[in-house]
Amino acid sequence: MSNFIQTLNDAWQRTNSLLCVGLDPEPSKFPGALAGRPDAIFDFCREIVDATAPYASSFKPQIAYFAAHRAEDQLEHLIAHIHARHPGLPVILDAKRGDIGSTAEQYAREAFERYQADAVTVNPYMGFDSIEPYLQHAGKGVIVLCRTSNAGGSDLQFLETGGRPLYQVVAQLAAEKWNASGQLGLVVGATFPKEIEVVRGIVGDMPLLIPGIGAQGGDVQATVSAGRTANGTGMLINSSRAIIYAGKGEDFAQAAAKAAMETRDRINAFR
Amino acid sequence: MSNFIQTLNDAWQRTNSLLCVGLDPEPSKFPGALAGRPDAIFDFCREIVDATAPYASSFKPQIAYFAAHRAEDQLEHLIAHIHARHPGLPVILDAKRGDIGSTAEQYAREAFERYQADAVTVNPYMGFDSIEPYLQHAGKGVIVLCRTSNAGGSDLQFLETGGRPLYQVVAQLAAEKWNASGQLGLVVGATFPKEIEVVRGIVGDMPLLIPGIGAQGGDVQATVSAGRTANGTGMLINSSRAIIYAGKGEDFAQAAAKAAMETRDRINAFR
Repeated sequence: MSNFIQTLNDAWQRTNSLLCVGLDPEPSKFPGALAGRPDAIFDFCREIVDATAPYASSFKPQIAYFAAHRAEDQLEHLIAHIHARHPGLPVILDAKRGDIGSTAEQYAREAFERYQADAVTVNPYMGFDSIEPYLQHAGKGVIVLCRTSNAGGSDLQFLETGGRPLYQVVAQLAAEKWNASGQLGLVVGATFPKEIEVVRGIVGDMPLLIPGIGAQGGDVQATVSAGRTANGTGMLINSSRAIIYAGKGEDFAQAAAKAAMETRDRINAFR
Repeated sequence: MSNFIQTLNDAWQRTNSLLCVGLDPEPSKFPGALAGRPDAIFDFCREIVDATAPYASSFKPQIAYFAAHRAEDQLEHLIAHIHARHPGLPVILDAKRGDIGSTAEQYAREAFERYQADAVTVNPYMGFDSIEPYLQHAGKGVIVLCRTSNAGGSDLQFLETGGRPLYQVVAQLAAEKWNASGQLGLVVGATFPKEIEVVRGIVGDMPLLIPGIGAQGGDVQATVSAGRTANGTGMLINSSRAIIYAGKGEDFAQAAAKAAMETRDRINAFR
């Protein structure tokens, strides 16, 4: 039985990287040589994965990009490929699911049994009983949205309740009430380094999935300073588009590898 | 170009029903005759749909139940079947998606282009820019989670902010800021009739999708009194398990039809 949190800690140490490569495949952005291939999405992602694996400690496929193209089977093959060829690098399925218990059980089966993901992202709006069914899958990780990197994230997450913004309440619920099994992580966007610092203060060493560097413009130094734990880890720093679309030609995989290496190094410079 | 809100209003009038039949297919609960059929999920749902259509004004397939069984193709066929055989009854894809704009665009394609749903449920935690991409699909409906029917719904939705619980803030944002295009609806659970009444007061005639009668125990009279609009409509009152699993034997479709008819009539007794 794999254990996501342990695998992640081992990966951070072994790879000396906090980089999580996000896989958001858009066929319209693929190089010409892939056009028209029946499994173009898988082929593109596999080349990205194999080229960037030396510089990454995890991968995060975003399921919407597969679902919009009827490519669920390619997502299954991709995750199986990562497990087979890059063992020890955990796969976070970015799905942001959220529903009542009986339905959440089905989503948990989708993420962990069908796709064999090591962790899944979930939405806290429906409360703990919408998160609990995922925790029944022993050892799997559940990464709860806390403070998201988009502008509209403030619409609800920054509303003040009990003297604090809502996202801090979510962090506190996650740390103090919802994490008895030790399987949780939180999503905190890199566009808000001060808020990463506050969340880190609330949740101790809980892993933080931090999207928003790269294409979304988050500052690497401020992010790392705000989010690192005492041993200089604790973060899955995600970059998607800035890595996977670093090159537009036939050398796209090499360009992605170079972007991944540089991102890893920029992160490590501030750890 | 179909228009969800108009189609829904027409369906309420023409069918004299506010019932939304929820399609949450679990193969372990299917009658024996369907066991082992390659398209058992489609076959089960199609029989339920055809039997209950005379008593319903909409259908709501829950995508998790299909995704957990690699049955996306059966969901596509099911929605195509509903459109072909029961035109004028809108299909709400219950997916509760929520993500940043570029990803939300993919989810919108999934719901509206791939599955040809008339409306989709979405989660408001990431704010308006996570909802806006769905609204770019003119005429389609977007039904935002407001107050959910599960116990844990209170964890966040009942937190007080600005003197009101969070779900009321969501209702107000939906009514006053997010609905310029007139495509929105809200999810409000039947387990909280007083809260349905408050939401109705905030949102005017906006359609309310109300799960939680039937298996979840919500009270029909209190729900209808709280949620109806001046013309006695305005609600998609959803029942899933209490209808689709009303019978366990070969007569499951007839049992579902009887349960649907009775539910429609119980609702209509209080309109």
